[in-house]
Amino acid sequence: MPELRRDPVIGRWVIISTERAKRPDQFAPAVSEKEDLPPGEKCPFCEGNEGLTAPEISALRRPGSRPNGPGWDIRVIPSISPLLQIEGSLDRHGHGMYDLINARGAHEIVIESPHHLRESELPKEQMVKSINVILDRIQDLEKDRDIKYVLIFKNYGKSAGGGRIQHARTQIIGTPVNLKRVKEELTGSKVYYDYKERCIFCDMLKQEMQFGKRVIAESKYFVALAAFAARFPFETWIVPKEHSCDFYKVDRAKVPDFVELMRTVFAKMRKVIGDFPFNFVLHTAPFRRDLGKRGYWETVEYDYHWHFEILPILTRVAGFEWGSGFYINPLPPEEACKSVKEAVI
Amino acid sequence: MPELRRDPVIGRWVIISTERAKRPDQFAPAVSEKEDLPPGEKCPFCEGNEGLTAPEISALRRPGSRPNGPGWDIRVIPSISPLLQIEGSLDRHGHGMYDLINARGAHEIVIESPHHLRESELPKEQMVKSINVILDRIQDLEKDRDIKYVLIFKNYGKSAGGGRIQHARTQIIGTPVNLKRVKEELTGSKVYYDYKERCIFCDMLKQEMQFGKRVIAESKYFVALAAFAARFPFETWIVPKEHSCDFYKVDRAKVPDFVELMRTVFAKMRKVIGDFPFNFVLHTAPFRRDLGKRGYWETVEYDYHWHFEILPILTRVAGFEWGSGFYINPLPPEEACKSVKEAVI
Repeated sequence: MPELRRDPVIGRWVIISTERAKRPDQFAPAVSEKEDLPPGEKCPFCEGNEGLTAPEISALRRPGSRPNGPGWDIRVIPSISPLLQIEGSLDRHGHGMYDLINARGAHEIVIESPHHLRESELPKEQMVKSINVILDRIQDLEKDRDIKYVLIFKNYGKSAGGGRIQHARTQIIGTPVNLKRVKEELTGSKVYYDYKERCIFCDMLKQEMQFGKRVIAESKYFVALAAFAARFPFETWIVPKEHSCDFYKVDRAKVPDFVELMRTVFAKMRKVIGDFPFNFVLHTAPFRRDLGKRGYWETVEYDYHWHFEILPILTRVAGFEWGSGFYINPLPPEEACKSVKEAVI
Repeated sequence: MPELRRDPVIGRWVIISTERAKRPDQFAPAVSEKEDLPPGEKCPFCEGNEGLTAPEISALRRPGSRPNGPGWDIRVIPSISPLLQIEGSLDRHGHGMYDLINARGAHEIVIESPHHLRESELPKEQMVKSINVILDRIQDLEKDRDIKYVLIFKNYGKSAGGGRIQHARTQIIGTPVNLKRVKEELTGSKVYYDYKERCIFCDMLKQEMQFGKRVIAESKYFVALAAFAARFPFETWIVPKEHSCDFYKVDRAKVPDFVELMRTVFAKMRKVIGDFPFNFVLHTAPFRRDLGKRGYWETVEYDYHWHFEILPILTRVAGFEWGSGFYINPLPPEEACKSVKEAVI
């Protein structure tokens, strides 16, 4: 019989629907996600084509190279079609009962290799460099008082909105408002903390480590979990073992360990479901904790816990989900975990 | 420059991104949504094939016909792959810090014609009969004390999770929990009511009728609006002019007027974006207002206002949206409204 599970942080109910069950490997996408630029069309993210993008925001450059020319390992550029813009000043206004803000913020692309490599082809050292550059970018954006939150994400594959260029990259969006999903997590974590005086994510980690059946893999400092109330088949969270609310304050010495775990998890997932489309999203605490209701932010450093979510896009989200915020997951997370954990890489 | 707009009820921010703008008619789906059963395969929803489904729950039958045989106008059956089940008793339990419920509830399909008609081919009188049957079903499900909320929705077209059989139908799901999205709307409406002592939807309707640029069409009792903070291109809400929190208590004499407006709106939308995939979802107040925190439900009859949402699925939702609950809509709702309003049918 199917089962309803409640996400303990934000209270979202998910139907784990065993009635429509398939074997884990049957979730592999039917359509290949491998489309890329047609031959002859230049990739704007490749070394040598720097002239095809706006001037770089920053880059990890090799000695002797010049900005906006070749000779880099990681390059950060403004998005080609930015959703938010860094120029101008923030303008909050009303229209009758409605509220609007101009699109002041940031939208950057971190190009993760000078070569035309797919997500799955990125070498470990490039991933480590990329995360370090992302951490630098967040630290820099934190200085902009108009930016309240920084969203770090990857869209990979057509079904996940990955676009048609298969060159590994991460997007950074700095928003002038705190996002609904983040507020929900903060509120849920605070309610738990006010009651228990413990971080809900730390408690969850403890319970998961004891239970074991949703632990996909762990490294020295991080754990990869199949979420208890996973919305999507193979939804996976990567959580630091040590409590911390701000991703950008992570000890840089732990980055190689984080990357190693991520590589293991993705490689194992690809063994089960092939080169799957996914969204990869950071959840971290917002910057401006001195604004707004004091009581609301008071405990955020104790109650919130940053993590990444890997959301494979293997099923369609339909009216039921939109209308209700209530998801249907046809694969119990324990089964997803087992198949990924046991995959030999 | 793009603009951020806040949904006044639930506080969700949407980027109205004019940077990626297309003309309204360019949103028409590239891929046809017209797939259907292969020739020779029997449709379980067609008259004469009643034996292919579980026994009917109810039906509008012509005189002299018998249950589970031909001779009906509207037929209600249990879902072929039910997400929730009507048998057994509700079992809420915990697993450490987690909460679970068995999948007690209801999942029904309302077949809206004995003939193999698509959504766009349904005659007006069938739609009126269907809505009346749906209202009967909600009244019946309300008597089941384990059901807290009834979700009414249509998924049409492949991209909207519509399945491969193109026979017009509506789904009914009765859930044992109040859904997150519904709670968010109730909370938002209550906060506004506590402050203003007015219904937020009534205020919105008043402002929209004065402003005019987001009013797609209206009938005697209902209005079709392009939502101010629409998540999707052509997102349309159908709202009753008179305040009411419960759809199922609607005056039956108003149903033909409602159907007429819906037909006008869909016909105009199809003129602009063709036979588009969509989700159609009812938002209404939950049943069990005598449960839970008294203060929370006290004003729901005054503060909440039922409505339907038409959500065309013409763009992809990517990592940014999942991670943030923050949507990107590449078509300003005023432009969507103008093109639909001006479409000649």
